[in-house]
Amino acid sequence: MKNFTSVNDITDLEALLASAQKIKAAPLADNALGQHKTIGLLFFNPSLRTRLSTQKAATNLGMHPIVMDLNADGWSLEFEDGAIMNGSKSEHIKEAAQVISQYCDIIAVRSFPSLVDKEKDASEYVLSAFLKYATVPVVSLEGSSEHPLQSVADALTITEYKTVKRPKVVLSWAPHCKALPHSVPNSFVKIMQLADVDFVITHPEGYELNPEITQGSVITYDQDAAFKDADFIYAKNWSSYSDYGKILSTDTNWTISSEKMALTNEAKFMHCLPVRRNLVVTDAVLDSPASIVIPQANNRTFAAQAILKKILEDAK
Amino acid sequence: MKNFTSVNDITDLEALLASAQKIKAAPLADNALGQHKTIGLLFFNPSLRTRLSTQKAATNLGMHPIVMDLNADGWSLEFEDGAIMNGSKSEHIKEAAQVISQYCDIIAVRSFPSLVDKEKDASEYVLSAFLKYATVPVVSLEGSSEHPLQSVADALTITEYKTVKRPKVVLSWAPHCKALPHSVPNSFVKIMQLADVDFVITHPEGYELNPEITQGSVITYDQDAAFKDADFIYAKNWSSYSDYGKILSTDTNWTISSEKMALTNEAKFMHCLPVRRNLVVTDAVLDSPASIVIPQANNRTFAAQAILKKILEDAK
Amino acid sequence: MKNFTSVNDITDLEALLASAQKIKAAPLADNALGQHKTIGLLFFNPSLRTRLSTQKAATNLGMHPIVMDLNADGWSLEFEDGAIMNGSKSEHIKEAAQVISQYCDIIAVRSFPSLVDKEKDASEYVLSAFLKYATVPVVSLEGSSEHPLQSVADALTITEYKTVKRPKVVLSWAPHCKALPHSVPNSFVKIMQLADVDFVITHPEGYELNPEITQGSVITYDQDAAFKDADFIYAKNWSSYSDYGKILSTDTNWTISSEKMALTNEAKFMHCLPVRRNLVVTDAVLDSPASIVIPQANNRTFAAQAILKKILEDAK
Repeated sequence: MKNFTSVNDITDLEALLASAQKIKAAPLADNALGQHKTIGLLFFNPSLRTRLSTQKAATNLGMHPIVMDLNADGWSLEFEDGAIMNGSKSEHIKEAAQVISQYCDIIAVRSFPSLVDKEKDASEYVLSAFLKYATVPVVSLEGSSEHPLQSVADALTITEYKTVKRPKVVLSWAPHCKALPHSVPNSFVKIMQLADVDFVITHPEGYELNPEITQGSVITYDQDAAFKDADFIYAKNWSSYSDYGKILSTDTNWTISSEKMALTNEAKFMHCLPVRRNLVVTDAVLDSPASIVIPQANNRTFAAQAILKKILEDAK
Repeated sequence: MKNFTSVNDITDLEALLASAQKIKAAPLADNALGQHKTIGLLFFNPSLRTRLSTQKAATNLGMHPIVMDLNADGWSLEFEDGAIMNGSKSEHIKEAAQVISQYCDIIAVRSFPSLVDKEKDASEYVLSAFLKYATVPVVSLEGSSEHPLQSVADALTITEYKTVKRPKVVLSWAPHCKALPHSVPNSFVKIMQLADVDFVITHPEGYELNPEITQGSVITYDQDAAFKDADFIYAKNWSSYSDYGKILSTDTNWTISSEKMALTNEAKFMHCLPVRRNLVVTDAVLDSPASIVIPQANNRTFAAQAILKKILEDAK
Repeated sequence: MKNFTSVNDITDLEALLASAQKIKAAPLADNALGQHKTIGLLFFNPSLRTRLSTQKAATNLGMHPIVMDLNADGWSLEFEDGAIMNGSKSEHIKEAAQVISQYCDIIAVRSFPSLVDKEKDASEYVLSAFLKYATVPVVSLEGSSEHPLQSVADALTITEYKTVKRPKVVLSWAPHCKALPHSVPNSFVKIMQLADVDFVITHPEGYELNPEITQGSVITYDQDAAFKDADFIYAKNWSSYSDYGKILSTDTNWTISSEKMALTNEAKFMHCLPVRRNLVVTDAVLDSPASIVIPQANNRTFAAQAILKKILEDAK
């Protein structure tokens, strides 16, 4: 693995999850692998789990993490080729990415979408620029259209908690007061398509995700029908993709409640966090034994560590 | 010691100070104790000494510190149980505390009071929530009503500099242009009540600290009388507690001056820092040999290290 | 070497560059030197290269770096002696510098000039205050009138890329839309005066640097003439020094273009970065093989490491 900015970069999901499980059983076993190596964690946006778990993963591997909030700490970056830089941008990504590559052995970047300019967001112009100009491996800490580290943790969690060989996994839209990105559901859909699961997506009309991504997956507007016999409910809000970045519904009938969970096969409840209580999901569900959001978040460390380990090994 | 969020958590002050002195003599002696362990330092407010000294203490113990400015770096947190989270708060402390507990072996938190809502501040709702939901030890880096790490450094400093078995220690209010918290004086009062000292509190009328805390301690409105025969003058401003968070006086007669210090038994001058020169204390006093504020600040490292060491040892 | 805040602190440039080259060949050779030592990197201003390369250098030496954005993370500092601190400043540099000295073995500081108050900027009041009150070595991460770590990297780069014993090096002003400091050109001039080079400064009239610094160096207003036979073109914008902090020209005839470079002896193009593309220099030049700005930035690590190594060794 050279870079990891999309679920598409996973060539063997089963092997990756096996590696993550091995790491979880002995997190310090590869502590010599990253010795004297540096990972730069570059944030354009807030982060709690990703920030902490990736640092934890890196130090478990013996690496030295350097964290930068690019907006506050560094220079504003220009991404346009050929720009006459007489405005507010001080440095071109061409230089920044090459320069950082000389100080860091791996560059990890978080850059959220605008949710305004659909084409620009789809281009993943920030990650793409790092991929183009960096001379070291690039890892996404969530881009504008994918959050692949999250999805590896999600798949790992389903592997751990499933009680049947081929569980039914439901990705359910849930209401939210803010317009949210599509990165988490996109990566979840992609990784479920690689996994041995019975996968269903449910959301209100108008909330269809990018059809190029959901192609081949079952989609229904009937949340209750989707929940029937489900082993895992993965809740997540996202804004409209067709009416890009818009909130079309805040219908709390879509909130994951005990009544909804009762429709399932004693399903486990999952969410990437942060989660809005009593909006996306009720307290009753989130505080019930069915909720596995905390161990799911814990798996962020081992997912990240499996990815970083693979990158370090393949770079040798 | 499981957690350390109050002077009340100290069961044996003498043993703790002896440990701190031993650490000061050989700061790296326990460098293996914290190996491969992580401490999360979470700041809701500015910090210089606490930020640096706790990192220093943690690295002396072999720990890996991760620092986060929660306002700038993470998600805004909801602390109300049962809240319908459709406002500005993105994540509930229930999840945040449990999740961080999986990435960090110790969680340390700084959260100042509002100085507006007396009851809420008294509840220490931030630290209390971490104590409630975190699954690892929680350390206060200053809460809304106590700053216990500071007070351990204070007690250590008095132990080092006292020339009589039972010194006279005076906590004196001093003027300030901003409304300040009660956390430092509260913890200082509490720890002095545990120490073998002749302790006096002096402040203008209306500046009484929480009577539940000062109960049993001598209080006088006559600063000059208090200073008589004093071996240590501990200066600190705080806002009114009864007229909560208000500035009732900026009377510079209360400023610690050479004339005031002349009333003492060649007392040492102490302050937790940062200190406003020529408002709380004159340049003449702060720059005199009587001032021990710099070695007092140095002791922050060894106080923090003694606490972290105890927590790590007791967690084994 | 006790401190490093100016090129003037270099006593033997040749030895320093030899050390940097040795370090570059084996960056981890001195990894035991800084073991259990801490460097505090204190930033009043943005930083990318300096922030990352100095951390990299410090960890190569086995040191533990603590990074602080002083504006966001700490307390606002007072620098005036004798001030009555009843305004917005919470802590005096006297205490801050002494206190930080107890937590860190080396203090490194970035503080840009105001470009408004010429005398105050010239006084380097921030670095001077740290030099006065700190009790450990102080390193400049760019002050108001010098950027000495940059200039060591610059000199190292010229040493590596020169093809004749005594190359012709041209420092050329170039246009910019913002008023920029004189620190980089000042330090570059000073270090070129120490090096065995044929050195020429060129800029439009009115852009004379501090004559006390440029004394003895050739200055011309004719950029084309200056470029003739040049082996290195070092481009940099700065604001007027005589008409302090003002932008007197944005004449794009001074932009470094292929036509300009054609006047030289196949000169290498250098810039400290960040650089404004198509304003300071055209894409054609920056993207040509003549540009060595990326390896120049890489040398920041080894320059910093040579300085930190010397300070650590001399402190023994």
